[in-house]
Amino acid sequence: MNMQDRKTTASGFTAGLPGLTDSIAGELADVETLFEAELASDLSSVNTLVRHVNRFRGKMLRPCLVLLSAKASGELTRTHITLATVVEMVHMATLVHDDVLDEAELRRKGATINHLRGNEAAVLLGDYLISHSYHLCSGLDSQLASRAIARATNRVCEGELLQLHNRNNFDLDEATYIEIITRKTASLCATCCALGASFAGASERVTASLETYGLSLGIAFQIQDDILDIAGDAATVGKTLGIDIDKGKLTLPLIHFLRTAPREHRSLLRALLVSKEPDRGEKIRNLIVPSGSIDFARDRANQLVDRARASLRNLPDSEARNVLDAMAQFVVTRAV
Amino acid sequence: MNMQDRKTTASGFTAGLPGLTDSIAGELADVETLFEAELASDLSSVNTLVRHVNRFRGKMLRPCLVLLSAKASGELTRTHITLATVVEMVHMATLVHDDVLDEAELRRKGATINHLRGNEAAVLLGDYLISHSYHLCSGLDSQLASRAIARATNRVCEGELLQLHNRNNFDLDEATYIEIITRKTASLCATCCALGASFAGASERVTASLETYGLSLGIAFQIQDDILDIAGDAATVGKTLGIDIDKGKLTLPLIHFLRTAPREHRSLLRALLVSKEPDRGEKIRNLIVPSGSIDFARDRANQLVDRARASLRNLPDSEARNVLDAMAQFVVTRAV
Repeated sequence: MNMQDRKTTASGFTAGLPGLTDSIAGELADVETLFEAELASDLSSVNTLVRHVNRFRGKMLRPCLVLLSAKASGELTRTHITLATVVEMVHMATLVHDDVLDEAELRRKGATINHLRGNEAAVLLGDYLISHSYHLCSGLDSQLASRAIARATNRVCEGELLQLHNRNNFDLDEATYIEIITRKTASLCATCCALGASFAGASERVTASLETYGLSLGIAFQIQDDILDIAGDAATVGKTLGIDIDKGKLTLPLIHFLRTAPREHRSLLRALLVSKEPDRGEKIRNLIVPSGSIDFARDRANQLVDRARASLRNLPDSEARNVLDAMAQFVVTRAV
Repeated sequence: MNMQDRKTTASGFTAGLPGLTDSIAGELADVETLFEAELASDLSSVNTLVRHVNRFRGKMLRPCLVLLSAKASGELTRTHITLATVVEMVHMATLVHDDVLDEAELRRKGATINHLRGNEAAVLLGDYLISHSYHLCSGLDSQLASRAIARATNRVCEGELLQLHNRNNFDLDEATYIEIITRKTASLCATCCALGASFAGASERVTASLETYGLSLGIAFQIQDDILDIAGDAATVGKTLGIDIDKGKLTLPLIHFLRTAPREHRSLLRALLVSKEPDRGEKIRNLIVPSGSIDFARDRANQLVDRARASLRNLPDSEARNVLDAMAQFVVTRAV
């Protein structure tokens, strides 16, 4: 599984927010403890495999959204630690299943050592994570969170399926692209914020504002991820770039380029997208980066960040609100 | 995805029980309706993919266990239709993810057409099914069922992971084999029966008896599945046999053979298990079938069926109890 690549980006997000998550450092540590406790099995072979997951901890963005939304809108309780752990587990499950796809790519390039075991382990490990996320969530007193999480995971799957359906569709439009990333990425972020607020006793208005914040932030986050995949610095990002192109995934900069660039540039991009040249990724990068399409995508992301920040105005002033505000800005300025 | 193979065995189980599931035919139809309604998406591309699942309906064993356990121990309600749909969806998810592994096998044999898209679709479709199963379950009034289903799926994953861990372990012992199939197959059957009884208002004693029934039946069912994979008639079973051997999965007949057969036969089997000969499956079959190892596995399965039937004695006499009794016997006499 392509886990080592991701490891280098671990905690990149929180590392990029120096001091900002200090106010929830204790709660984040509790989340890590509960994460490991929930996944512990009486079978040593299962624990050995699960340890792989612990080695590549994510950005903890989703737990931060749950915890900060709670703090910014009411009282943070033990339930929030559980919810934060659940959403991180859901997110890790999607990462692990993405590895199945990544590994398939590696296989196409010939690196097939142990691929069969790797693929199966990734599928089963992802299933184990998603099962435990629901298990943990269903230990809460009400069905409210379970229902909301399951609704979000339904939408995550739909987003992934819509993305797969549009693989190698070089006529993909911006609206469909936004639909894909809203479902696959933003819906879970929105649910994190809504549940954080709801379980903190926030009013419906505040809960809805935080849900909008999470949704807008989630879309912006994914646009930035897609920008970095083309225009990022590989050494900084710490993982292989150009994966979207290799997977036939059209992202916002490319969609804009194919709509607005001079005809001969558009033809060149289309030719590169279907070519088998080993350095086509580099050629596409050299075509897109100097064009205005990266800036266009950045503008879109910035608009969403503005919308996210505007939603926060419905909340009382607090340190947690300030952190959420800074986090929204960081989502699009990060280089990792 | 290797779905067509399975299609031929669709409803093989219920077809093999002529008249026996008549008493719950209406409820089973309701399950099918709810199954389709729950999976419906506003995205046409998702619905197109989901239709693949509807084309290869399973044996409906697990819904039957929920519904008959309810009828045999109390009152069957609308909640049971939901629970029966949930467990069928969980089961279908595991089948679809098994297809990822099957397709990997096909790939090893060279049939690689469209394998990448197939693999990804199978992973995502399985995720979609499991997500919707939890979504449907979390719509019930209490967390009881969600928690029990999630506990069962935790164990299903552990069983699959333990099985993967023991791939190509030709020293696998019977106890570990039983542990694997108990978790991966029997735990969900046990949960079906326990939830069916519990939501019908059954006493703890009756609920526990039905749980034991489901557990024993589930283990016997898997042993019979494994026997058919070696000694079944391919035309009758309707799917490729010898898959366990191809996957390096040691099942009960082979475990017994490697422990009890004459030394030279054991050596021959070990050599065949690691060989790449295209007809090694046939050779293994010709070695195992005339030995006493198939009968040994059948005896084990029969003992479990006896235990399952004995558990039913704690229930009042009823038509549903008689069907459960007949179903336990059919599990080991079926040729499909």
